[in-house]
Amino acid sequence: MINKLVAKIQKTHAPIVVGLDPMLNYIPEHIQKRAFDQFGETLEGAAEAVWQYNKEIVDCVCDLIPAVKPQIAMYEQFGIPGLAAFKKTVDYCHEKDLVVIGDIKRGDIGSTSEAYAVGHLGKVQVGGKSYYGFDEDFATVNPYLGSDGVKPFIKVCKEENKGIFILVKTSNPSSGEFQDRLIDGRPLYEWVGEQVAAWGEEHMGDSYSYVGAVVGATYPEMGKVLRRVMPKSYILVPGYGAQGGKGKDLVHFFNEDGLGAIVNSSRGIIAAYKQEAYAKFGAEHFGEAARQAVIDMAADIDGALQAAK
Amino acid sequence: MINKLVAKIQKTHAPIVVGLDPMLNYIPEHIQKRAFDQFGETLEGAAEAVWQYNKEIVDCVCDLIPAVKPQIAMYEQFGIPGLAAFKKTVDYCHEKDLVVIGDIKRGDIGSTSEAYAVGHLGKVQVGGKSYYGFDEDFATVNPYLGSDGVKPFIKVCKEENKGIFILVKTSNPSSGEFQDRLIDGRPLYEWVGEQVAAWGEEHMGDSYSYVGAVVGATYPEMGKVLRRVMPKSYILVPGYGAQGGKGKDLVHFFNEDGLGAIVNSSRGIIAAYKQEAYAKFGAEHFGEAARQAVIDMAADIDGALQAAK
Repeated sequence: MINKLVAKIQKTHAPIVVGLDPMLNYIPEHIQKRAFDQFGETLEGAAEAVWQYNKEIVDCVCDLIPAVKPQIAMYEQFGIPGLAAFKKTVDYCHEKDLVVIGDIKRGDIGSTSEAYAVGHLGKVQVGGKSYYGFDEDFATVNPYLGSDGVKPFIKVCKEENKGIFILVKTSNPSSGEFQDRLIDGRPLYEWVGEQVAAWGEEHMGDSYSYVGAVVGATYPEMGKVLRRVMPKSYILVPGYGAQGGKGKDLVHFFNEDGLGAIVNSSRGIIAAYKQEAYAKFGAEHFGEAARQAVIDMAADIDGALQAAK
Repeated sequence: MINKLVAKIQKTHAPIVVGLDPMLNYIPEHIQKRAFDQFGETLEGAAEAVWQYNKEIVDCVCDLIPAVKPQIAMYEQFGIPGLAAFKKTVDYCHEKDLVVIGDIKRGDIGSTSEAYAVGHLGKVQVGGKSYYGFDEDFATVNPYLGSDGVKPFIKVCKEENKGIFILVKTSNPSSGEFQDRLIDGRPLYEWVGEQVAAWGEEHMGDSYSYVGAVVGATYPEMGKVLRRVMPKSYILVPGYGAQGGKGKDLVHFFNEDGLGAIVNSSRGIIAAYKQEAYAKFGAEHFGEAARQAVIDMAADIDGALQAAK
C-alpha cells in the first residue's frame, strides 16, 4: 500500500491528502436541508448530510489526488449513524481508487492494540469466517504506550500490506508540552522519530517503509531534523492552510527524490467555498471550490519544491 | 460523577471496576452458538454474543461493584455491529446504576478532541436538537498532544458533570520506552502526573477531581510516587490479576482515607470460569464464576488495605 501511495503521488504530481473532517457547519444549507427532510434533525440526518457532502467532494477531487484522510472523531461524535457514514465514506473512496488514511489515533496495550489493528486494517475472525470492520489502508497511531502498543499494528500491516503513521510531532500549539521536553539533550519527538525509523525497518516497501510518521507543518524546523532521523518513513504533514502552514514551510519534509511527504489539508479544501478566494463558486458548487483549492494547493507545494531545487 | 463514583465505592466497599473486554474466545460456547444460530457467523452474530455475555455478567455482579469499564477496541474490531453492542452495554449498565468508564484512549488536536468529547461524554448538536452519541460517564484520554488535546474533554466534562482518566503510566511491559525517560531528572510520567493534578484543579468534585489518572498495577513503586504527585486525582489502576498485579501491590495507590484508587480487572473476572480456581462453576455458570471472582478480588484488596493500616 505504501508502494501504491508513492505511485499515485508520482502520477498525480500532488503529494496531497484531503482531510474528510466534516463539521456540520461546513456543510452547505441545501445538503443539510435535504438530509433533515429525509431523516429529521437526528443522528441519522446528520450522518446522511456528512455522507452526501463527502461524496460530492470526493467526486470533484478524486482524479487530482492520491489519498483522503477521514478523521474518525468527526463521525464518532454522531454515534453509530456517524460511524456508519465513516465506513460508507471509506468504501466509496476505495471505489474511486483512493488510498484511505484512517485518522484514528488509536493506541493501547498489546492485545487491545491488536483489536484496533484488526478492526481498522485487518480482518476479524468470527467462527469459521472473517470480516473487515472498517478497512482503511493506513491508520494513525499514538506512540505513548511504546513498542507493544505499536507492534500489533505492524503485525496486521504485514498480513494485509497496509501501513501506519505514528504521531511524532503534532501540529497543535501545545504539542510541545511533552513532545519537546529534552531527554539526554534531545527532544522526546526525536526519540519517537528514531523509534519510528527502527519499527519501519520491520516492514519495508520498495523505497519507503509501511511505517510512517505524523509531523505538523506548523513546525518546519523540526520537520527538517525529523526528515533526517527517519529517511525511509513517509511523513504525513497536517497543519497546512487553516492551521497556518504554507508550501515554502514544507520543503524540508521532502527527500531529495521529491518524495517522502504527503501534506494534509481539511477545512482549507472541503470548506473552500467559505473562503473569500473561492466565494465565487457559491455554496451550491462547494465541490468545484474544493477542486480549485486542491489545484492551488498542488501548485503552491510544487512551486516551493521547484524553487528549492 | 466523581462524587457518585466515590459514594458507590464507599457503599460497596469494593474499589473495583470490571473491565468488559469481551474477546470471542472468552465467551462460552453456548452463548456463541445461540448468537450464531440467530445471526450466522457474521459481525452481527459476534456482536450479539458479546452483548449476551456482557448482560449476564453485569446481572451477576452489578450489586457488588461501583463501575464497569468497557474497552471499546474489543467492540470496534467487529465494526458497526460491534460498536452498537458497545452502546447497548453502556445503556444497560446505566439501567443497573453502574458508573461507566469508556476505555477509549482518545486524544487529538483541539477541535478533534472536542468531537471525541462530545461523542463520548456530551451531546452533539444537530440543527435545533441535541443527542448523546455513546454517553459514557468517564473516558480515558491520551496526553501525548498536551493541554489543547485534553482541555476540550474537561470543557465537556464541566457541562455534563462527567470525568476523564488520563494515561500517566500504563501497565504494559514497554510502557517505559517513552514514559520512563528522564526529563530534568524526573521521568516523563511524573511530568504528565503533575499536569494531571493541574488540569484537575479546573474541575473539582467534593473531595476528588473529575480529572483522574491511569497508572498500572504492574508498577507499584511508581504508583507510590504518583499518588503524592496527584493527591486529588482518582487513580484508575489496570493490570490486576491477569497482568500480574496483586492486592498488596495496590496499597500505595490509595490515600489514607482509603479512597483515591479504583482497580480494574477484565479477563480475571469476566473469564473467571476458565481459571482453575473457578472451574467448578462450569461454562454454563460463567456469570456466577465472575461474581465469585469479584468477591475474592474485593477481599484481596480490602485485606491488603487493612493490613497496611
